[in-house]
Amino acid sequence: MAYKKDDNFGEWYSEVVVNSEMIEYYDISGCYILRPWAMEIWELLKEFFDAEIKTLKLKPYYFPLFVTENVLQKEKDHIEGFAPEVAWVTKSGKSDLEAPIAIRPTSETVMYPYFSKWIRSHRDLPLKCNQWCNVVRWEFSNPTPFIRSREFLWQEGHTVFATKEEADEEVLQILELYRRIYEEFLAVPVSKGRKSEMEKFAGGLYTTSVEAFIPNTGRGIQGATSHCLGQNFAKMFDITFENEKGERSMVWQNSWAYTTRSIGVMVMTHGDDKGLVLPPKVAPIQVIVIPVPFKDADTTAIKGACESTVYTLNQAGIRADLDARENYSPGWKYSQWEMKGVPLRIEIGPKDLANKQVSIVRRDNGAKVDIPSTDLVEQVRVLLDGIQVNLLETAKQKRDACIAPVSTWGEFTAALNDKKLILAPWCDEEEVEKDVKARTKGELGAAKTLCTPFDQPDLPSGTVCFASGKPATKWSFWGRSY
Amino acid sequence: MAYKKDDNFGEWYSEVVVNSEMIEYYDISGCYILRPWAMEIWELLKEFFDAEIKTLKLKPYYFPLFVTENVLQKEKDHIEGFAPEVAWVTKSGKSDLEAPIAIRPTSETVMYPYFSKWIRSHRDLPLKCNQWCNVVRWEFSNPTPFIRSREFLWQEGHTVFATKEEADEEVLQILELYRRIYEEFLAVPVSKGRKSEMEKFAGGLYTTSVEAFIPNTGRGIQGATSHCLGQNFAKMFDITFENEKGERSMVWQNSWAYTTRSIGVMVMTHGDDKGLVLPPKVAPIQVIVIPVPFKDADTTAIKGACESTVYTLNQAGIRADLDARENYSPGWKYSQWEMKGVPLRIEIGPKDLANKQVSIVRRDNGAKVDIPSTDLVEQVRVLLDGIQVNLLETAKQKRDACIAPVSTWGEFTAALNDKKLILAPWCDEEEVEKDVKARTKGELGAAKTLCTPFDQPDLPSGTVCFASGKPATKWSFWGRSY
Repeated sequence: MAYKKDDNFGEWYSEVVVNSEMIEYYDISGCYILRPWAMEIWELLKEFFDAEIKTLKLKPYYFPLFVTENVLQKEKDHIEGFAPEVAWVTKSGKSDLEAPIAIRPTSETVMYPYFSKWIRSHRDLPLKCNQWCNVVRWEFSNPTPFIRSREFLWQEGHTVFATKEEADEEVLQILELYRRIYEEFLAVPVSKGRKSEMEKFAGGLYTTSVEAFIPNTGRGIQGATSHCLGQNFAKMFDITFENEKGERSMVWQNSWAYTTRSIGVMVMTHGDDKGLVLPPKVAPIQVIVIPVPFKDADTTAIKGACESTVYTLNQAGIRADLDARENYSPGWKYSQWEMKGVPLRIEIGPKDLANKQVSIVRRDNGAKVDIPSTDLVEQVRVLLDGIQVNLLETAKQKRDACIAPVSTWGEFTAALNDKKLILAPWCDEEEVEKDVKARTKGELGAAKTLCTPFDQPDLPSGTVCFASGKPATKWSFWGRSY
Repeated sequence: MAYKKDDNFGEWYSEVVVNSEMIEYYDISGCYILRPWAMEIWELLKEFFDAEIKTLKLKPYYFPLFVTENVLQKEKDHIEGFAPEVAWVTKSGKSDLEAPIAIRPTSETVMYPYFSKWIRSHRDLPLKCNQWCNVVRWEFSNPTPFIRSREFLWQEGHTVFATKEEADEEVLQILELYRRIYEEFLAVPVSKGRKSEMEKFAGGLYTTSVEAFIPNTGRGIQGATSHCLGQNFAKMFDITFENEKGERSMVWQNSWAYTTRSIGVMVMTHGDDKGLVLPPKVAPIQVIVIPVPFKDADTTAIKGACESTVYTLNQAGIRADLDARENYSPGWKYSQWEMKGVPLRIEIGPKDLANKQVSIVRRDNGAKVDIPSTDLVEQVRVLLDGIQVNLLETAKQKRDACIAPVSTWGEFTAALNDKKLILAPWCDEEEVEKDVKARTKGELGAAKTLCTPFDQPDLPSGTVCFASGKPATKWSFWGRSY
């Protein structure tokens, strides 16, 4: 690693994602190649999430990549939000198309004309669609692997209900799944909360999100969003149903998504100057076994012990692999697997063979222990669980250390300069958020609301907004963001 | 169903895929919405295939949707094959892009510049990539759901080897997996064989395929292809490695794919005038349970028996579901689930309750049997297996009945008019294939080679080509195709 995380975070991040073989830069700016080390993580997350939403009776769909201009523009606020980033196909072969066709930046306008067709009666509700696909947002600001790319992979759920209560309930069910993806799988602490009116999904009623924070850059990052769209799209796309009394009613809708960005947040959170650090639950390889054949050692016996170690772990459902390459030294291999962030390294040399043990090194804290081969599976499980817990705990401590409650504008700007995750009492007025943005504009980007966390500290009566001096109605997280 | 399969096949097919809720037509011609009844089949096929290729050490990748003009045009034969169908992005938001960007019609040119970068030594080989993604081919001929669409889903495998032997071996390993998808899962008989020089993959060395046949239209249909690319792309993209002797060598490459077309071939093969007929292995619901509460029956007890039947089947790993809707009659439900092609219907009425039995109806042949509840799981398994076997066997008989061996031009044209799958001795000269195409041109499309089957009938010496009169070197399948 040429760069250090604390010295040059941006270069460090690029180096980690490339050297760990997660990402290859592509010759179109803002597009990246996802290599197996990233895709296998994506598949593990998908496996969890897809199973969970299937228990919620979500069904798999695949809607087209393309949408006509006419349909795309049906919901005005929505298209205003996305228009500048839409990629347009205008030619096929050497011929011009009759009309330009957009590539989906998200699929509300692709899907909802058909929801209108499919939904007739209350018996057709709820309708619950999910698709795993690629979307394209042709952004011009700083492309960053995983975090901000012109094409990315995601799941998008689109659901339709007869009542607002059902929609509200699902918004939070899904948000909880997103929290679990971040906290249980990626070991990244997030705050659940609600977005401000300015920051909510274009065209929706309200947006909830899980928000992470990157201490090194002092930036918040939206982890995933679960939107209640209310009845706005239903009006535009005429999605109604005959209710049980035989009257026409308008539906309530949600949409929600998480993307490959989640992998980038995980890299930024846990990585160190040796490279990636992967939480065991998402590590494609959880244990790498490396033979350490000192001179004159019985290399055949060592290799045999390594193979049987891998076999035993695999049989127990642990993702273990053997690095038996003969053209690399053990030391070189240690570095490479540290770079790739594998949670545990097992070394087996002549002494281990003699003592019927293996030597295990943790990636997260470098701790080394010898364990008897007979306890292998049990001890490895304990260690993997311990690493998973430790990564989240450590990340939480670092994140929490960045939280700065402020009450005045002076404290606010000081905390912003200090790269804090700012928790401020706010009057919840859009004009005030605009004003804060305008007053903090600069090279590093303006401050904005990240979310109003569901977990609200006490707000003593008489507390005033840090920016407007008006009565505060809530605590909100503020800061710069990705 | 308004149309009959034998009377108006095209309309029948559209009606089946729409009414069974596999497909919804989309407002961009040639693009279709894949609904859960199609996507769940796609997921079942994917689950099988992905697990198989993982045992062959294929790794998951995701390469970008976009490719620059420059790279796309690097392999001339290849781009000539695809150029007329390439969709071009030329604008983002309101701005023109600096240069047009193509949407992948396939990913050889997207991937191979990076293969060149990643492969240095024989130790980097084999390299085995697979991705599940969408591709776009903006065709203008007859769009048909699943069969010919402008966007479709597929897997594409791209592999790189040090030797031709390894590449050759893998071509056939993958082809065998494709045969299993068609024959074991979709119950569609296919012929394995090799494509002619004219029909092979643009830029490749040779192409193997599994070919199906649709008796109703008398057309062959390419089921999936496994290509050996030889060293042609390696030359264009400079993919070389240092071999064990320290010399630069050029790699050997394969690429292979199957698409959502496979679902359409299955629909065409098994569907009947009542709708879809699904092979049990890919049916999202294998058994639908319908309560039949005649007047005065104990509806609670019937519903209870239905629920416990579904529960018992689900516990045994059988995909069973209950249709408990009260606003539809049993007869209406029978029709709907027949339309959707569910392999087995279980009816439970008062008599069944009294006799501790269920009544089971097969979708494939309408046969009805009563079975004691105690034998439920075992008998359902036997029936599902029987349907799977029967569908393939029936389809094979129908396909085989269409095979017409010919030896003269007169027999050939007669068989072509008769919608046969023509097996003809051929001299294997490209000029002759071109000539046959020219001489059979017409409203229904020209005849061409489908494949040269690996399973070759005896070719007595002195046999001459049906078209040129020159010595024949092989038997090939000829016909019109999709």
